[in-house]
Amino acid sequence: MALRVQEAMLEIKRGSVELIGEEYIASLVQKFFETQERFVVKAGFDPTAPDLHLGHTVLIQKLATFQKFGGKIKFLIGDFTARIGDPTGKSETRKPLEAQEVEQNARTYQEQVFKILDPKYTEICFNSKWLNELGSAGIVQLTSKFSVARMLERDDFEKRYKNNMPISVVEFIYPLLQGYDSVALNCDIELGGNDQKFNLLMGRNMQRAYGLKKEQSIMTMPLLEGLDGVNKMSKSLKNYIGVTEESQVMYAKIMSISDVLMWRYYELLSQKSLRDIEALKEGVKTGVLHPKKIKEVLALEITARYHSDNLAQEAKEVFDKIFTKKSIPDDIRELSFDSGEWICKILVEAKMSPSTSQARREIKAGAVKLNQEKLFDENFKFSQGEYILQLGKRHFLRLKIN
Amino acid sequence: MALRVQEAMLEIKRGSVELIGEEYIASLVQKFFETQERFVVKAGFDPTAPDLHLGHTVLIQKLATFQKFGGKIKFLIGDFTARIGDPTGKSETRKPLEAQEVEQNARTYQEQVFKILDPKYTEICFNSKWLNELGSAGIVQLTSKFSVARMLERDDFEKRYKNNMPISVVEFIYPLLQGYDSVALNCDIELGGNDQKFNLLMGRNMQRAYGLKKEQSIMTMPLLEGLDGVNKMSKSLKNYIGVTEESQVMYAKIMSISDVLMWRYYELLSQKSLRDIEALKEGVKTGVLHPKKIKEVLALEITARYHSDNLAQEAKEVFDKIFTKKSIPDDIRELSFDSGEWICKILVEAKMSPSTSQARREIKAGAVKLNQEKLFDENFKFSQGEYILQLGKRHFLRLKIN
Repeated sequence: MALRVQEAMLEIKRGSVELIGEEYIASLVQKFFETQERFVVKAGFDPTAPDLHLGHTVLIQKLATFQKFGGKIKFLIGDFTARIGDPTGKSETRKPLEAQEVEQNARTYQEQVFKILDPKYTEICFNSKWLNELGSAGIVQLTSKFSVARMLERDDFEKRYKNNMPISVVEFIYPLLQGYDSVALNCDIELGGNDQKFNLLMGRNMQRAYGLKKEQSIMTMPLLEGLDGVNKMSKSLKNYIGVTEESQVMYAKIMSISDVLMWRYYELLSQKSLRDIEALKEGVKTGVLHPKKIKEVLALEITARYHSDNLAQEAKEVFDKIFTKKSIPDDIRELSFDSGEWICKILVEAKMSPSTSQARREIKAGAVKLNQEKLFDENFKFSQGEYILQLGKRHFLRLKIN
Repeated sequence: MALRVQEAMLEIKRGSVELIGEEYIASLVQKFFETQERFVVKAGFDPTAPDLHLGHTVLIQKLATFQKFGGKIKFLIGDFTARIGDPTGKSETRKPLEAQEVEQNARTYQEQVFKILDPKYTEICFNSKWLNELGSAGIVQLTSKFSVARMLERDDFEKRYKNNMPISVVEFIYPLLQGYDSVALNCDIELGGNDQKFNLLMGRNMQRAYGLKKEQSIMTMPLLEGLDGVNKMSKSLKNYIGVTEESQVMYAKIMSISDVLMWRYYELLSQKSLRDIEALKEGVKTGVLHPKKIKEVLALEITARYHSDNLAQEAKEVFDKIFTKKSIPDDIRELSFDSGEWICKILVEAKMSPSTSQARREIKAGAVKLNQEKLFDENFKFSQGEYILQLGKRHFLRLKIN
């Protein structure tokens, strides 16, 4: 294998959990280098949840890597089942989406992912197009391509069946539909989360069943750890960084992660090459570089991606001003609260005010500063992040809001 | 319950294996007696096999009984799956049917069943109509109405799953489609063979799942025993009486059954009332009637149904002439052969001719009679039935062709 292909493969495999059909990918990359002929890379996204956080972008970053080495991305929005709703009826929240909502969500996706992907080699696709065309007969024929026993081999089905927990027949249909998407798109490679292996393999099965002359390679990516470094990033755990968050919040959140997690984020989120990352690690090891400096580089890269170089730079300056300027004593107290906490309650708990009504008066009077800016909203509630709270001239508090 | 309804219910239940929802049926019959309002009775038929034998007519007879007591018959031709073919790919013979074939088969059905059913209260339906209308989304929604575990409770699925024999996912779809037919037709009652109970119950499940305000009653009918009185009637076992068979063959076949089987055929095939049949049984018991006489009555009824009174009478006369006239000795030998046997080979095996070439010459010379008619076809092959074979003036053989 040519050295150039070998290096590309290292970047492609970087951070992945599993890769089936590696040789096929290498041959596609080689062909691209030789002829500029591109291959089809698919990843599916849920049209009900277009608000991405960095956890979601692990996949999209990988798609960007594929683009660099010849991938033509099919960004698949699974609107077919979303338009049906969740017919299993388990979840009250999954109501059928209207065509208009799907369109709106697709636009949102587009805005967000084109900050990472090159639109020239990205096609946003909707699977309702070919799945509706199948019609009743086509869907029934599709279900003839796979056996019940093999379906029950899927981990979660197997467990639920053994434990007498209901599985609706429709749940056997979804993986088949996803598999058929790979037939319709004539995919060469499909990417998915670590929990998607069975469904990704279904693409191979269906391509075979429908007589395609190729079988897609599949790659699974890990779930990104959230700010706590332990749990997967998720909105409900409040350990996430949303891609639409303001530049200063985004920058500060990245600066709050541990050094270990920082390297993980470099691996999965940074567009720096493996070689450059290796150099940074070497710098830390030899004492030439301080980890905080490297975290700044990461925070700047990611903030700039979703905002701009200028805004990222500005965010860094604000952050530095708050946390490093002389105006704030070094040894101030630190307290932690949950996101959503009311400022007056915090002032009381920190024993900075004797009562919440007193706290209200002080805010109105302009005696309270948050990150060195006067705060006049007595109903202010905190969202996740780090803050410096100041009352009068001398009372400081470092706040960690989880 | 009014006596009239009670008597109707006895005729309705006659010969059935299982009946679920008996009270609902009684209420429908009562309403019919009071208001002439009819109720919907459905039975499904396979459009690939329009050639009926008496075994198939057990169901159709029952539909006729329902017609008498208020049923409006939906004679359902399951063309939807037939048009797809057998997607499980197990059977080479189940190729997709063209629309034209389905129409042709439907016409054949019509010709045959209107010899039993009143066309005024019979509608021939094709399920492709509403199943195609469901479309991809409708089919997927349909599959959300039932669980995998309950599907695997069906006897044959359970066995196959336990024995690691493949079940295709599409086999889970078929019962759902059949159930949906009952929704689309707004059925009150569905009839089916004894092996159809699970699928008939599915009609109830789907009517509930789709919010209908009723649940169909279901009735299963037994499989009719063939001429041998042991195995179910089937073409492959060659123990059948086809509804399109010639009058003389039909008559003779019925005359060949045992006395025990005769009563079974009375129960399941005759349009005589239970009361009349009781009277016949009483006649035999008291020695007033000979069983052979009663078999003649049955043979005449059934032959007349598929031909005419005249042809049935003629068939009886031919039969009597062959089997009871003085011209044939009483104590002639009897031999059995399989259907398809060549006449010359039989003449040799019966030691009536020394060689097949000699047998050929005797046939050409007009020395061989079959059922008292000269036979000149030296290549004649036997089909199922009973025959008298005669060579010259004195050599007789009674032939039973299975």
